[in-house]
Amino acid sequence: MTRIVSLDTTDIRFPTSLSLDGSDAMNLDPDYSAAYVQVVTDAGEAGHAFVFTIGRGNDVQVAAIDALAGHLVGQELEPLLDDMGATWRGLIGDSQLRWLGPEKGVMHMAIGAVVNALWDLKAKRAGMPLWRLLSRMTPEEIVGLVDFRYLTNALTPDEALEILRGAEAGRSEREAALLADGYPAYTTSPGWLGYSDEKLTRLCREAIADGFPQIKLKVGADLDDDVRRLRIAREVCGPDFPIAIDANQRWEVSEAIDWVRALAEFALAWIEEPTSPDDILGHAEIARGVAPVRVATGEHAQNRMIFKQLLQAEAISVMQIDAVRVAGVNENVANLLLAAKFGVPVCPHAGGVGLCEAVQHLSMFDFVAVSGSRDGRMIEYVDHLHEHFITPTDIRHGAYMPPLAPGAGMEMKAESIATYTWTGAHVVA
Amino acid sequence: MTRIVSLDTTDIRFPTSLSLDGSDAMNLDPDYSAAYVQVVTDAGEAGHAFVFTIGRGNDVQVAAIDALAGHLVGQELEPLLDDMGATWRGLIGDSQLRWLGPEKGVMHMAIGAVVNALWDLKAKRAGMPLWRLLSRMTPEEIVGLVDFRYLTNALTPDEALEILRGAEAGRSEREAALLADGYPAYTTSPGWLGYSDEKLTRLCREAIADGFPQIKLKVGADLDDDVRRLRIAREVCGPDFPIAIDANQRWEVSEAIDWVRALAEFALAWIEEPTSPDDILGHAEIARGVAPVRVATGEHAQNRMIFKQLLQAEAISVMQIDAVRVAGVNENVANLLLAAKFGVPVCPHAGGVGLCEAVQHLSMFDFVAVSGSRDGRMIEYVDHLHEHFITPTDIRHGAYMPPLAPGAGMEMKAESIATYTWTGAHVVA
Repeated sequence: MTRIVSLDTTDIRFPTSLSLDGSDAMNLDPDYSAAYVQVVTDAGEAGHAFVFTIGRGNDVQVAAIDALAGHLVGQELEPLLDDMGATWRGLIGDSQLRWLGPEKGVMHMAIGAVVNALWDLKAKRAGMPLWRLLSRMTPEEIVGLVDFRYLTNALTPDEALEILRGAEAGRSEREAALLADGYPAYTTSPGWLGYSDEKLTRLCREAIADGFPQIKLKVGADLDDDVRRLRIAREVCGPDFPIAIDANQRWEVSEAIDWVRALAEFALAWIEEPTSPDDILGHAEIARGVAPVRVATGEHAQNRMIFKQLLQAEAISVMQIDAVRVAGVNENVANLLLAAKFGVPVCPHAGGVGLCEAVQHLSMFDFVAVSGSRDGRMIEYVDHLHEHFITPTDIRHGAYMPPLAPGAGMEMKAESIATYTWTGAHVVA
Repeated sequence: MTRIVSLDTTDIRFPTSLSLDGSDAMNLDPDYSAAYVQVVTDAGEAGHAFVFTIGRGNDVQVAAIDALAGHLVGQELEPLLDDMGATWRGLIGDSQLRWLGPEKGVMHMAIGAVVNALWDLKAKRAGMPLWRLLSRMTPEEIVGLVDFRYLTNALTPDEALEILRGAEAGRSEREAALLADGYPAYTTSPGWLGYSDEKLTRLCREAIADGFPQIKLKVGADLDDDVRRLRIAREVCGPDFPIAIDANQRWEVSEAIDWVRALAEFALAWIEEPTSPDDILGHAEIARGVAPVRVATGEHAQNRMIFKQLLQAEAISVMQIDAVRVAGVNENVANLLLAAKFGVPVCPHAGGVGLCEAVQHLSMFDFVAVSGSRDGRMIEYVDHLHEHFITPTDIRHGAYMPPLAPGAGMEMKAESIATYTWTGAHVVA
């Protein structure tokens, strides 16, 4: 028997605002940060995870994770790990904490971090990377992870079971294919708003040379700038190369439609986050207005109920889950099942701090055991801050190669934690 | 010139779980709490406000309010109060803090508390209760308070101006009517799930005797119990007395429809919070399924974008704003304008700690200067914890009598603050 003895949190902030890496129309000067948690046992094991933030307020996020200590510290570990569905419901079901959302924002992301840290522990104990651990669970076990509350008018447990059973055949072939070829990646590295045209040109060339099958550019601050930058990207990448754009919630509904139509000549792969992430009906209106350009969103979708509605309303053609915005692996399993039910490809949000390391496990699980497909699917990739992780992403020829180290991939190096622990002023390393 | 010198926060918790006051199908043992803030100036003035929570996590909410100190402390007060629209946008527009929502949950409610504390200061300086201060602003000034971002496909500034100008005639007559008759209240006091049938019977009788025009019962834990309790209430109140029910998000969509239909014999005034507050499309489906029973929701609606969609989707026939769930007075002005645009009555959520004291100002402003009507409108009332406020509600013959003291009504007594400041264990006074 093992007991959880502590839930250790750290406020980690990288001074990314100093270089404008990560700048977009909404987020002008982010300091990529992590509200980091370690769930530590009396056997000396630790599960690691975090909430990604962009600077100020990372301390609030840490306080929210700390507020969950009462649910874990002193508990036996094995019962928690053996029934992760019940563990998830226990955390989400704290009726007093629930009031602070419900199931959204700071408190919900805190639960996500703790859930993900437990998954990290569970995968390490199993000696498997998370994607493989999930992929080898039975359909019944996977369904048991999901809370179907508020989902049953779109997805029932029986329907989920049917999806998962349908993907059972071929699991091992797909795992082999994954190990051989990896999972497609696209890169956002060229496209940050703060970059010069020269840097944009150079990074587009590098993206092509590195074998990425798609790039993405930030847009939405100024239409003339967007036209100029897309023209550069189109010239460098050629007429048929997929180029997506991302407005980071900058527009009104009608403005989004007009702006995207004004960029029609660039044959865009998708328009991402055109407006408020809460505006399901607005996204549906935009989707109708900008077709055949596809609408993508999800990195700020607060929970499975929002994804459900985006799918029900035919508001998105590309679903972008995020590893740390919702309440961890369990809720993202629900999100993947919803996408499979509606036949919409999942192309996760990544970048930030460790989001690539974390979310790749979910897409790989999706390929092996849920949708059974990589077609039209790819994971965002930003070449940034990977050096702080114990098992950084391994990108080859524009693909994520599956991690083989046991765990969920979110563990940071002790030296990085020590160097970038927030003290009220930035460390420029 | 006056400067803000501090933003003082306090974690206040009342031991309401000990008496089951406030118990419902979702919130079994709430400890009504306030993350309380005082914005203090170098002239010795203070603006008071709070976020209402139900216990655990109140400390997280306090931390979120503290995270806003950098926006206020050291600032000149007058420019902030003179352009509350700009002040609101400055707080909401902090792109780093915005990531923690955006515009939802702990961080959004924290902004609401700070905004409301500034309104308290502004009203005190003007020597007026908040409802009167707002009601005497010009239509242009009121429109200037609202951030129309993400609203323009449902409500433009010009449309808002038209609504407000339309209500300019008769403002003084309506203010006089308000002073004479007050604003209708309905009571939830009889209906908590934790109460015995005898207590329910007694409290229904008292509600009638006190002149309340409607009561509300909590439902959703057990259908047989709901039938029994509604039968008691119907017998005590008579066949034509309005009785609303509140499921506190307990149901799936189809379950809500079935359950409410099973209660058809009781001729319900409305069904409140039938399912997840995030499920706009689900509420619309329920509204179609339970008609002519009306659907009400809003106390957990995270921001104006959710209210916009609930109205667009015809998901609600009764809109329930809450004074402290969204980002303060400014966002609730937007919500009132949306309701007026769509012709839906606003019946605010109240109860908790000080929610009655706070939200009455918004309904009274709505009557005098926005919708211009009290028809079909009433404010929830729960007779609970009012003794802790400097200017407690004044209920006469089932109506809120308008507060006349300057301010926003959220200031607590120093003695109550001192007694109930959380120390890690409940004080039973």
